[in-house]
Amino acid sequence: MANSSDKQFSIGVDYGTNSVRALVVDISTGAEIATAVFDYPSGEAGILLDSKDPNLARQNPADYIEGFYHSVASAVRDAAKTEGFTPERVVGIGVDTTGSTPIPVNKEGVALGTLPDFKDTLAAHAWLWKDHTSHAEAQEITRAASEGGLPYLAKCGGTYSSEWYWSKILHCLRTAPEVAKATYSWVELADFVPAFVTGNTNPDSLERGICSAGHKAMYHTDWGGLPSVEFLDSLEPGLSRFRYSTPAVASNHQAGKLTAEVAEKVGLKPGIPVAVGAFDAHMGAVGAGCGKGTLVKIMGTSTCDCMPAPMTEKLPDVPGLCGIVPESIMPGMYGLEAGQSAVGDIFNWFVKQLTPAKYGTEAEAHFKLTEEAAQLKPGESGLVALDWNNGNRTILVDPLLTGVLVGQTLHSTAAEVYRALVEATAFGALTIINRMEEYGVQVEDVINCGGIAEKNPMVMQIYADVCNRPMKISRSAQTCALGAAIFGAVAAGAYPSVEAAQAKMTGVKETVYQPIAENVAVYQKLFKIYSTLHDAFGTADYSGSLFHVMKDLLEIRQRARGAADA
Amino acid sequence: MANSSDKQFSIGVDYGTNSVRALVVDISTGAEIATAVFDYPSGEAGILLDSKDPNLARQNPADYIEGFYHSVASAVRDAAKTEGFTPERVVGIGVDTTGSTPIPVNKEGVALGTLPDFKDTLAAHAWLWKDHTSHAEAQEITRAASEGGLPYLAKCGGTYSSEWYWSKILHCLRTAPEVAKATYSWVELADFVPAFVTGNTNPDSLERGICSAGHKAMYHTDWGGLPSVEFLDSLEPGLSRFRYSTPAVASNHQAGKLTAEVAEKVGLKPGIPVAVGAFDAHMGAVGAGCGKGTLVKIMGTSTCDCMPAPMTEKLPDVPGLCGIVPESIMPGMYGLEAGQSAVGDIFNWFVKQLTPAKYGTEAEAHFKLTEEAAQLKPGESGLVALDWNNGNRTILVDPLLTGVLVGQTLHSTAAEVYRALVEATAFGALTIINRMEEYGVQVEDVINCGGIAEKNPMVMQIYADVCNRPMKISRSAQTCALGAAIFGAVAAGAYPSVEAAQAKMTGVKETVYQPIAENVAVYQKLFKIYSTLHDAFGTADYSGSLFHVMKDLLEIRQRARGAADA
Repeated sequence: MANSSDKQFSIGVDYGTNSVRALVVDISTGAEIATAVFDYPSGEAGILLDSKDPNLARQNPADYIEGFYHSVASAVRDAAKTEGFTPERVVGIGVDTTGSTPIPVNKEGVALGTLPDFKDTLAAHAWLWKDHTSHAEAQEITRAASEGGLPYLAKCGGTYSSEWYWSKILHCLRTAPEVAKATYSWVELADFVPAFVTGNTNPDSLERGICSAGHKAMYHTDWGGLPSVEFLDSLEPGLSRFRYSTPAVASNHQAGKLTAEVAEKVGLKPGIPVAVGAFDAHMGAVGAGCGKGTLVKIMGTSTCDCMPAPMTEKLPDVPGLCGIVPESIMPGMYGLEAGQSAVGDIFNWFVKQLTPAKYGTEAEAHFKLTEEAAQLKPGESGLVALDWNNGNRTILVDPLLTGVLVGQTLHSTAAEVYRALVEATAFGALTIINRMEEYGVQVEDVINCGGIAEKNPMVMQIYADVCNRPMKISRSAQTCALGAAIFGAVAAGAYPSVEAAQAKMTGVKETVYQPIAENVAVYQKLFKIYSTLHDAFGTADYSGSLFHVMKDLLEIRQRARGAADA
Repeated sequence: MANSSDKQFSIGVDYGTNSVRALVVDISTGAEIATAVFDYPSGEAGILLDSKDPNLARQNPADYIEGFYHSVASAVRDAAKTEGFTPERVVGIGVDTTGSTPIPVNKEGVALGTLPDFKDTLAAHAWLWKDHTSHAEAQEITRAASEGGLPYLAKCGGTYSSEWYWSKILHCLRTAPEVAKATYSWVELADFVPAFVTGNTNPDSLERGICSAGHKAMYHTDWGGLPSVEFLDSLEPGLSRFRYSTPAVASNHQAGKLTAEVAEKVGLKPGIPVAVGAFDAHMGAVGAGCGKGTLVKIMGTSTCDCMPAPMTEKLPDVPGLCGIVPESIMPGMYGLEAGQSAVGDIFNWFVKQLTPAKYGTEAEAHFKLTEEAAQLKPGESGLVALDWNNGNRTILVDPLLTGVLVGQTLHSTAAEVYRALVEATAFGALTIINRMEEYGVQVEDVINCGGIAEKNPMVMQIYADVCNRPMKISRSAQTCALGAAIFGAVAAGAYPSVEAAQAKMTGVKETVYQPIAENVAVYQKLFKIYSTLHDAFGTADYSGSLFHVMKDLLEIRQRARGAADA
């Protein structure tokens, strides 16, 4: 064991939807010695809402700055209780955030929402990832790129989202011209925090991360960076003004060094290298131990599936994947991102809306339903479901899909339906793995992280049986912050590569869920049925397609609700 | 108003699954002046079960006899409190029963199950309608008739059921040869009771009703009565021994006259004419006011839809209808029978298995869910369901179909699902009406009866909107017993025809549910979606059919359960 006087530490700062967490990590072992969480004070649980528009979700950029100060300072104070830790031994800092969460800034890189003139203007604040006000603009961008025969969407699944950078900027330009006028540039939250804490805030020179740029802003070296001036101005004259020209880089690069002012507030020494920021899921994948052939599934209310793939072989575009971006997860590798729009959210929905009294409170119900569902054999319920209650992100890239349940009799029980929903999400997971493998990306290993992976052995066993692969669980419960800490260490030069840092700082739990042959055989049959329903309801080119069914239902629903807005 | 000294009465005796009800009716007005119910004492709620075989359901024939004595005697005693009633003024008795419920009898017409030698032999008792032990024999009969190019199934939907007469007799012959040996004839419960109370029990001469014979025993004048000796013996040598040769007749005929012994036990005078028996639903339809162009829906856990059609025009065979039998409902008219395998049962299933605590107890939940669901506009939930949790009786005649729910999101509520299930049953009802009309049988009027029709205005409004027809509700809450009383009066000669009796003795409630144009328009769209799913999941010839989905699921389920028995 290293002498405690040799120890070095890095700090990962993880910006979630409602709070920010700082984690102090021993870089030689990955030991997490201290952590602190700060809840964003503004709005409802940190989100600025508009009662007239359910699609709107903004955040106060001041909360991010306060959040850095409070969480890091608190974690550092707490770390001081651990033998061998001193603030001087912190060698690097990494930052991960939600996204796409772009923030309008002025020429000096100051967030407009923090200026007195704009503090009450929602459009001047951060446009949180789940803001869907720009759905019309997203469709317009998809159409323009597709009709123009342009390659911009090839790396992000073929469909531009209302959650993404240019949709939001375009919507702001059209609906809040006074904000657009005062805006010099739009900076992703993942870049905003490193820029602020290093003082490197000039929008023309601050470091932009390849992760957010590549996955959300159609940035790719194949076409020289961001989409062309012509394309952007064809969407709206003047949109190209927000086209930055600095190259986007991976998170092994430094965004800068901690300023004296910030260092003092958080109890660290100035000059500590801060890594270029990236999205939470991507850094989380690194913190869980992703690598060539190793897929990381971050399982929460939804899932994000991340896997790097060597850039030595040219990857084909994989239809339906959210993104394939060079270096977005690990330097020197393609970053592949996929995801399921709802996983835990489906179980939560079922518990909240359709679970009888005998299962107790909502918290108890998950436990009791799982207990009963675990007694069932695969196939025993006669039920199969599609996991589309919140649409399908991968591989259909279609938010206008909905759930399906088939096979219920007069004896079907809540536990049977619950299990069918768990199985449906597992079939969704397998569909993603299969799509990757069809296009030559082998998935040799799966590491899971997030609350469901840690707390629900039945879910993990079903995933192992459905995917016919062992399911491993990440050792860390804070993989995003741990991944950020890894990048902090790498950017600081404490490790020569992310892989080298991972070898020391990450690991999996002893318990590995192994596929059970008998169950695998049944699930192969059920997966065929799932796939038939998937193709029938989810694709337009299926023979005798039911593709119109969900669309028609949604249209009828919208008319019935008399809503002007989709 | 008639002088009370002129009044005449008839008694309807209605044999249900768990009890028998006697109803005393004023034949000039239909006023129901007294009623009494007797619960069958044997088995569980009147049903003899076999813990080793969930398909088995028998009844003790002695319960039927006791039931007649107790229910009629009690109703007559109670009627005596009404001014103008005396036992001498009872002019006729009618009987309706469940079916097909065949009873093995000896040469004297005595039920074997009432004899000491057989009182503990389940096969010697009545084979209740819902006994499914003979599902293999049913398939065999269907195959034999179909492969032999024989017409026998043309009038009963093309598929012979395990619930029916010959399936049960064939199964008994093969599995209980000692019972078969002692059996001289098999008598339907609907014939057994009138035979017993009139003493006209000789199996070679007792009156057999056309209703049970035509709907369940493949009896038709087109082929001279029951299926041929050759056909029956090809199924099993000796089966033809149970082929009776008396003509089956309608319930305006007398089965005989009340014997002195029975009359004394029930407090009536001997010699009162007793009508030939028929099935509960058919007599219920008459009691509700069916007639040419007037469909009666008997809505309970399942539904039975009955409508007579003039025999002046030759009716085509209507594919998927349970039965088209001359005079089975009303003399001189074809009786058309259809049905939905589960209606109230689906709502009960949902309340029992999938309704959260906030809706209260099961009884409260129906009320509260209805209250919430009634607030929703058609189409507002975005949900559509198939009403097949117990298979589909009409028009697909396929018990191996299961439920479907499409369109659920993360916000779908229990009340929305409940309403979608109600709507699904209404779409199922419309599918039946449409099938009748496609084959030239116009449905001009719909009268509903049964608990749901009386107690749930939301359900009735949805049926009116979905079917785009006014929904009327029968005045009587005891339409089966009332229908039996009508036949008692007609068979006794108190009325010249069933229609004449109905004109005086039946009626509908003042409240009629009228279709609301705005809702009709939405439901027309939703019905298209229902029909698409109906055809995709329910028919093999649909392009890109999903017909295999439910079959595969059931097969996988059976294997998972390791059950030898389907």
